[in-house]
Amino acid sequence: MALLDEIGDFINTEIESIAYPEKPAGLYDPIRYTLEGGGKRLRPTLLLASCHAFCGDYRRAVKQAVGIEMYHNFTLLHDDVMDRSAMRRGKPTVHVKWNEATAILSGDTMLTMASQLIAENAKDKTANVVDIFNRMGIEVAEGQQFDMDFEKRDDVTLDEYLEMIRLKTSVLLGCACEIGAIMGDASPEDAARLRDMAIDMGIAFQLQDDYLDTFGNPATFGKRIGGDILNAKKTALLIIATSRDASLHSIIKSDIPDDDKIRKVSDIYVATGATDECRRLIGHYSEKAVKRLDEIAISSESKAIFRSIIQKSAVRNV
Amino acid sequence: MALLDEIGDFINTEIESIAYPEKPAGLYDPIRYTLEGGGKRLRPTLLLASCHAFCGDYRRAVKQAVGIEMYHNFTLLHDDVMDRSAMRRGKPTVHVKWNEATAILSGDTMLTMASQLIAENAKDKTANVVDIFNRMGIEVAEGQQFDMDFEKRDDVTLDEYLEMIRLKTSVLLGCACEIGAIMGDASPEDAARLRDMAIDMGIAFQLQDDYLDTFGNPATFGKRIGGDILNAKKTALLIIATSRDASLHSIIKSDIPDDDKIRKVSDIYVATGATDECRRLIGHYSEKAVKRLDEIAISSESKAIFRSIIQKSAVRNV
Repeated sequence: MALLDEIGDFINTEIESIAYPEKPAGLYDPIRYTLEGGGKRLRPTLLLASCHAFCGDYRRAVKQAVGIEMYHNFTLLHDDVMDRSAMRRGKPTVHVKWNEATAILSGDTMLTMASQLIAENAKDKTANVVDIFNRMGIEVAEGQQFDMDFEKRDDVTLDEYLEMIRLKTSVLLGCACEIGAIMGDASPEDAARLRDMAIDMGIAFQLQDDYLDTFGNPATFGKRIGGDILNAKKTALLIIATSRDASLHSIIKSDIPDDDKIRKVSDIYVATGATDECRRLIGHYSEKAVKRLDEIAISSESKAIFRSIIQKSAVRNV
Repeated sequence: MALLDEIGDFINTEIESIAYPEKPAGLYDPIRYTLEGGGKRLRPTLLLASCHAFCGDYRRAVKQAVGIEMYHNFTLLHDDVMDRSAMRRGKPTVHVKWNEATAILSGDTMLTMASQLIAENAKDKTANVVDIFNRMGIEVAEGQQFDMDFEKRDDVTLDEYLEMIRLKTSVLLGCACEIGAIMGDASPEDAARLRDMAIDMGIAFQLQDDYLDTFGNPATFGKRIGGDILNAKKTALLIIATSRDASLHSIIKSDIPDDDKIRKVSDIYVATGATDECRRLIGHYSEKAVKRLDEIAISSESKAIFRSIIQKSAVRNV
């Protein structure tokens, strides 16, 4: 995957060379801090690979790629304020390192900078990519709101959950592919197919995230195993298992020792078959994503790239 | 000013008929609440009047007008969170009525909805109006950051203050006029002239705001007279007066009774000539705004409309 490495290096160089205005430093320092904090750069990689798949020149979509990463980091910054998270990628979050007003305003500015980048050098495609980007932004906000609403509900269904992660996580991956494809002169139909591939991949990705939070390898997972259980987070595992064993409610809400709670709940996940069901869903969505690739007229080299991204996102261990 | 009344009714009807999605209610209820909370609708009025001035049909820019009001209300919503303000237009602010996460997310959504509206039906002008809108958004955020930075400084100069209010308040009025003019097929030169008119008007408007906070008529002002003094807000009056009488610092920071403080400080504003200087600046910027109108090739009816808006904004008593 020489091309994938090349795209990865390219996007990192581009993000490091963003020219922020000098003043006011209180506005731009937190933006640089957030953008340079690392991350997988999955979204710009998808965008550039999608552009390349149709025109062989990923550089054409460089502004849009930086824009989509800027947007993603804006959502992380504001989500961390809303969730009161203190750490992100091993560093203090912006509202902890600076303050909340700074986190809100820097995030707002990142959203506007992202819009600017998406429209930059888009030429006759401007109206189209701006429209796709803004519709995605509305959907992601709706997903975040559903996620917050679910915290207060005990009757969330699996379908509601899958729709929430589609909105909160997947449509951004879909948007990255669609905008990249359009910048590479794909037909609207092919751009939509690549978008749908990424949406399925995103659902598999998020379900895998849920799975690893409980059943990941502690040595490689990075976070404490069982965090979702301790936070009573409405994940696919919890929703499926609760529908099969109502006693889960009281265990999740009890104040037994953390390790006991994690062990008891994960045992129920296995016993009720929720774990198997979750693995089945991950397989279902990643296979659907791979199948969608077959319908798109791109080179086998490009298909291999997307298959490897699906593999890394959905069937990963870390 | 029959046209001005017509435009006012039109924009209110359009804002009331925005079709919000039903779900998630937790996201859209606060947006409707904010938008329907009233306000002068100054920005969409400027936008529509600008469009009308060049093409005689203000309806052409209806989406952009709703978009600019949506944007303005987004800034109020997030500013209220940052400033921890509990009331706005006589009603509890969103972060008080709902909660802070809701205020952040609803505001983010309003910014994206505003971007959508600005680009809607803009046809071949899309790239241009989107670019003007995004550049404005960055400047407004910079202005808000400077305003927050100034709270912690005692050496803010008048020039710095004027630049801050240009960014925080004026460029949005300028953007409204420029986008309206472009939607009405104005030349880029005329659109820029109308923008500069509104920027000067906005500076006069903000200086008048500062002036009325201390010297307004308590019967008509709506808020408590002297609020800026009690909050030690860096206004033009305080900055000018401090440069002429350094003792002001200690009075502003002292804990003498509120009424004494307001009386003492406003006496110094008058004695140092800061009050006269502030009135002179208001006159200077509103006259500059009126003069700019002369350079623009629009009907005398349209010029009268803008003159009346300048009059109402900058030479008002309430």
